[in-house]
Amino acid sequence: MNIEQITDQISIKTHSQGFIDITNIINKWIKSKTLIKGIINLTLLHTSASLTINENADPRVLKDLNNYMKAIVPEDGFTSINNTSNLQRYSHADEGPDDMPAHIRTSLTTSSISLSIEESSLTLGVWQALYLWEHRQKGSERRIAIHFIGDKQRFVQTTSEVIDYKENSNELNKIVISNHDPNAWAKDEGIDTNIDLMIDRIHDLAGEDTI
Amino acid sequence: MNIEQITDQISIKTHSQGFIDITNIINKWIKSKTLIKGIINLTLLHTSASLTINENADPRVLKDLNNYMKAIVPEDGFTSINNTSNLQRYSHADEGPDDMPAHIRTSLTTSSISLSIEESSLTLGVWQALYLWEHRQKGSERRIAIHFIGDKQRFVQTTSEVIDYKENSNELNKIVISNHDPNAWAKDEGIDTNIDLMIDRIHDLAGEDTI
Amino acid sequence: MNIEQITDQISIKTHSQGFIDITNIINKWIKSKTLIKGIINLTLLHTSASLTINENADPRVLKDLNNYMKAIVPEDGFTSINNTSNLQRYSHADEGPDDMPAHIRTSLTTSSISLSIEESSLTLGVWQALYLWEHRQKGSERRIAIHFIGDKQRFVQTTSEVIDYKENSNELNKIVISNHDPNAWAKDEGIDTNIDLMIDRIHDLAGEDTI
Repeated sequence: MNIEQITDQISIKTHSQGFIDITNIINKWIKSKTLIKGIINLTLLHTSASLTINENADPRVLKDLNNYMKAIVPEDGFTSINNTSNLQRYSHADEGPDDMPAHIRTSLTTSSISLSIEESSLTLGVWQALYLWEHRQKGSERRIAIHFIGDKQRFVQTTSEVIDYKENSNELNKIVISNHDPNAWAKDEGIDTNIDLMIDRIHDLAGEDTI
Repeated sequence: MNIEQITDQISIKTHSQGFIDITNIINKWIKSKTLIKGIINLTLLHTSASLTINENADPRVLKDLNNYMKAIVPEDGFTSINNTSNLQRYSHADEGPDDMPAHIRTSLTTSSISLSIEESSLTLGVWQALYLWEHRQKGSERRIAIHFIGDKQRFVQTTSEVIDYKENSNELNKIVISNHDPNAWAKDEGIDTNIDLMIDRIHDLAGEDTI
Repeated sequence: MNIEQITDQISIKTHSQGFIDITNIINKWIKSKTLIKGIINLTLLHTSASLTINENADPRVLKDLNNYMKAIVPEDGFTSINNTSNLQRYSHADEGPDDMPAHIRTSLTTSSISLSIEESSLTLGVWQALYLWEHRQKGSERRIAIHFIGDKQRFVQTTSEVIDYKENSNELNKIVISNHDPNAWAKDEGIDTNIDLMIDRIHDLAGEDTI
């Protein structure tokens, strides 16, 4: 198989503290590319916002998450959780009272996440969404670096799968058609594409009469 | 070298809050595959449990971690860490008092982790284990998506290593034997495997008489 | 394109709680390798220190982060954030009062991070640095496992880019020269390198007279 890499950056505008569901934004980006299976790394290029995966159904989850984060990293400073220290104010305060809390909230969550992609979609659970979590009061323009390493084709992985496909040539035809790029031959100026080679291989395995 | 990808999902049953060491479960999964070196991405497909790496020796570490997490994200709600706010109860509470805390605990840890694999094993420190951390009281069936991108062979990386192997053919033979799959020729129906090609290449480099 | 993998481990000595900026250490490691574009996974092989990305400019950010972490995970134990529990001391305390807090701080942050590499550099924002965050009082020798999967060449990705290059042969020549390894032929003992094949391909596409 031909493993390839695609890198890009996208920009997302936030307007206040809280969550932007970027699952569909990332899935649309993936679907606009030729690679369909691989690992994607997303790195938020800022230190006052996070990437996080959480519940996608009830907006109260996001409200509670945001309130909790404000309570555990308050703008006016912190005491120790066991109340044995006095209130400590932030020494890095030039950019406003929400700046240093945003840096702490970033380190308590994460700014870089890798996920699996299959069939041109992020592999997530039914109740999961991928969020950009803005920690600054006013938000900002937020850039995400995207790195996708993967390949263009669903491929026949095991001998038993090959046998299944031999017994179900309709299923196989669907896969071949879904992978077929009618312009591939022209683009490659006559060089065999992977799909050509896969088809040849399947003809070898299955015999000309079964497909 | 031929980089390939394997994806799968596994299920793990949890019964209460706390940790399940999944290091050996993942290592067994890896050893059942043909790829031996690469990067693995593990994504827990749920929003009320986490993946985390921590100490593997003293069970009291896990007890303290669990108690700490219950103290920092309590079921009955939270005040700000500097005690300047009243108790806030969770607004997302339909699924029980342990549900919203579990979502928060998930965002304070992580549900997706990537690790290096060499010689068919996760690269971890001597005192590290990979844990599934259940945050719900009763546990649940938890699915983990696995994505392994890598290759089948330890490969000769540098010219100096090739020279070392030429001077130490026993060492080289051990590597070749450890990589040899006696059924590869049959599986591939006569097509040269990577190991065949590597052996041919080594014969070229070393001369027929040194191996 | 030829995707390859490089694995290694590096050691970093810490002397006290706090941050060591390892951005340049990792970038130097990358630049010493032949791969120039890919995904890197860094796993800290310890359970009482973290990897984290945060602000690279004002040292007070790091001071505040460290103080906050000591306040939220104190050495003398914790109460619940809403003050409804008594002080709980750590049961895992044999290795000193800073040991169990260090394990908790590790799970609140992360010990494994993946990032994108382009042009032999980590893709980070202007204000981002990658830190090793030591959580023990006295520090220790800390090992990081590095896994780099990627390729050796910037490659021509789309048909439109090929056309651009055909119209701007100086730009193309710069890329080819930057990728050129004068010793590649010798290293490979006469076998065509990827750069040889790429040059051939470009000659085909552009016609001998345009380059």
